Amino acid sequence: MFSSWIKQLPDGTVTTPGGYLATGLNCGIKEDNRPDLAILYSESPAVAAGVFTRNLFQAAPVTFTRRRLDSPIRALVVNSGNANACTGEQGMEDALTTAKFAARYLEIPWESVLVSSTGVIGKFLPLEKLRGGLEKAAETLSLEGGTKAAEAILTTDTIIKETALQIEEEEGTYYLGGMAKGSGMICPRMATMLAFFTTDLIINQDLLKEALYEAVERSFNLISIDGDTSTNDMVLVMANGASGVEINERGDAYRRFCEALEAACRYLAYRIVRDGEGTTKVIALRIKGSPDFSTAKAVARSVLNSLLVKTAFFGEDANWGRIFMAVGNAEVKIDPYKVDLYLGEVKVAENGQGVSFSEEETSQVLNETEVPVTLDLKQGEVELLTWGSDLSHQYVTINADYRT
Amino acid sequence: MFSSWIKQLPDGTVTTPGGYLATGLNCGIKEDNRPDLAILYSESPAVAAGVFTRNLFQAAPVTFTRRRLDSPIRALVVNSGNANACTGEQGMEDALTTAKFAARYLEIPWESVLVSSTGVIGKFLPLEKLRGGLEKAAETLSLEGGTKAAEAILTTDTIIKETALQIEEEEGTYYLGGMAKGSGMICPRMATMLAFFTTDLIINQDLLKEALYEAVERSFNLISIDGDTSTNDMVLVMANGASGVEINERGDAYRRFCEALEAACRYLAYRIVRDGEGTTKVIALRIKGSPDFSTAKAVARSVLNSLLVKTAFFGEDANWGRIFMAVGNAEVKIDPYKVDLYLGEVKVAENGQGVSFSEEETSQVLNETEVPVTLDLKQGEVELLTWGSDLSHQYVTINADYRT
Repeated sequence: MFSSWIKQLPDGTVTTPGGYLATGLNCGIKEDNRPDLAILYSESPAVAAGVFTRNLFQAAPVTFTRRRLDSPIRALVVNSGNANACTGEQGMEDALTTAKFAARYLEIPWESVLVSSTGVIGKFLPLEKLRGGLEKAAETLSLEGGTKAAEAILTTDTIIKETALQIEEEEGTYYLGGMAKGSGMICPRMATMLAFFTTDLIINQDLLKEALYEAVERSFNLISIDGDTSTNDMVLVMANGASGVEINERGDAYRRFCEALEAACRYLAYRIVRDGEGTTKVIALRIKGSPDFSTAKAVARSVLNSLLVKTAFFGEDANWGRIFMAVGNAEVKIDPYKVDLYLGEVKVAENGQGVSFSEEETSQVLNETEVPVTLDLKQGEVELLTWGSDLSHQYVTINADYRT
Repeated sequence: MFSSWIKQLPDGTVTTPGGYLATGLNCGIKEDNRPDLAILYSESPAVAAGVFTRNLFQAAPVTFTRRRLDSPIRALVVNSGNANACTGEQGMEDALTTAKFAARYLEIPWESVLVSSTGVIGKFLPLEKLRGGLEKAAETLSLEGGTKAAEAILTTDTIIKETALQIEEEEGTYYLGGMAKGSGMICPRMATMLAFFTTDLIINQDLLKEALYEAVERSFNLISIDGDTSTNDMVLVMANGASGVEINERGDAYRRFCEALEAACRYLAYRIVRDGEGTTKVIALRIKGSPDFSTAKAVARSVLNSLLVKTAFFGEDANWGRIFMAVGNAEVKIDPYKVDLYLGEVKVAENGQGVSFSEEETSQVLNETEVPVTLDLKQGEVELLTWGSDLSHQYVTINADYRT
């Protein structure tokens, strides 16, 4: 997954890059005492960039944070358990009040605070709980708090999703840390979850934006759990310059940064699918021989979002017909009668037609918790690897019975 | 559902219009002896029109039948249990052979025979079984065979879907009959199932085509079970002129025919959703106040295809947040902050925001097997009513465990 010059650190977190502190605690939103409030704090002002939900409804924290990105950033506050998905005046007021509470206890300008919320839709933020929580959180910020923060942003997730990478440049070493949450409402259309990255690189906002946009396109925007896109999704990156390493032009060093950021995004995206609601299997879909990236993406999206494909994988059936049906629905201009399909190494269809294959061999592939599927379009050179989940009874239970 | 001048006949079938015979029997494709082969026969040559799958992969019967539509049509052969979804040479050969067998036993030209197949994907048609079946079927054609034919086209369906309408014109009375099958792979993008209509009207092909296209757009193309589109779908209409009533211009009589055809399509479309795989509830979605039809359709499609919406209805939760999330993903240009949402008569959200409502009242609505949902966009005059299904454990079972 990583190039040789990128080193993934075993216990890396968002505080691995220099100059960041973090914490996570329960402020009373989640009733079971799991952490529900995180602060990520930069000791010096950071440059920031973001990618946001494309849903027509944008939750208040999305609107608030988007407007703040051109300011020097000192902190990010994330609460889970309540999405502040209210989109009107009150939602915006509450986002601002949250930022102001954080600013007061962190002793920084409120304009330097970004906010993000995830959880139940349709209830106003419990501001008094947040105030108390932020007061306490400000006192517990630490270098070791990265994992606590990564835990506090989770909702129905069952695993913490975090990483850090070390990148060597001639000029010196810098770090990239990241954490993410998401296990439902995941669709390859866009950044459909929360992910926050830190780096101690010195970099200008234009380059940072560009790198983030591309990395998200090739990671979070390709995965699929249920094809839905939440109103609260955002991916943010902060760069505080603490390493002293500077990249301010589009050279090799910048390309390496882009690759590292993409690798970190892809690592967290994979973890999100792995932890998808009710996922029993990850479908690791490789599109080969595509004329271009957007065609490959559209085909991957159609296949990974098809309920008939998802249920076939849950049922461990080598159903090439359903996969081709989904390819044919992708609304792309390809010749479907050139496409080959492999499950693992087993070719199950060629030129759009099933071929005879050993069901014993495909059963072995389909039995695994990760099933490699390759669609070779044979009409170009572009390749793409992405992940989707199967559709299980557990998914229905989580999403139908969540209130009982 | 029907205008006053349209009379729905209680036991109407595809043989209710004059000059049609039909039959259905088991020819050995389905191993449990359920009927799997239908013939619909016209005593005189009929004008025909069709609407076909938009999937890039088109099964052989689709390609074959599409090419035959400009000929005078005498018969339609439909087999269930095997989709002949093979798209290559062999599939086309098998479609032609089927038509030739039917032609031989019916003593008509093979060019006047349309074919259609549905069922398991990926196996070649068992031609010898079909030959034997067609020989027997040709001998059992009857006026009473309409319901048998409607039964023989079913696969996982649990109810027969058929109807007939009587339409009075000054010139005389004519009839419209229809049968359909479909309970999975149903998506509002197009005619995603099989439906066959007969009429004894005299009408030219251009008018017939236009009427069918519009009727399908406003019926089968709006419903949703799982968002997938099969490779075999088709809707056909045959007009044999036996009533002596003629419509060959775009006047009031033609508009009444169009309305009758649309009503018949909508009746069968509703029956398909009602019988959707694992459906426990029909979501009867009304879009109001839309600027145009395509916007209303896109919003309906996004809402009815959302897994989170479908599972919320299965769970009987008044989750306005998920419905708005789906509206926001519809990729249309509307102001989401104008939209009101009703469950039954209960307003649960206004101007894109939840309002307080009685959960007791919404529970009563959500408990029913049919849940009326109204989205009032408040930005136009166009209205639309369509249907989707919830997503239940039973759906997952049917589509994952179908081989055991």
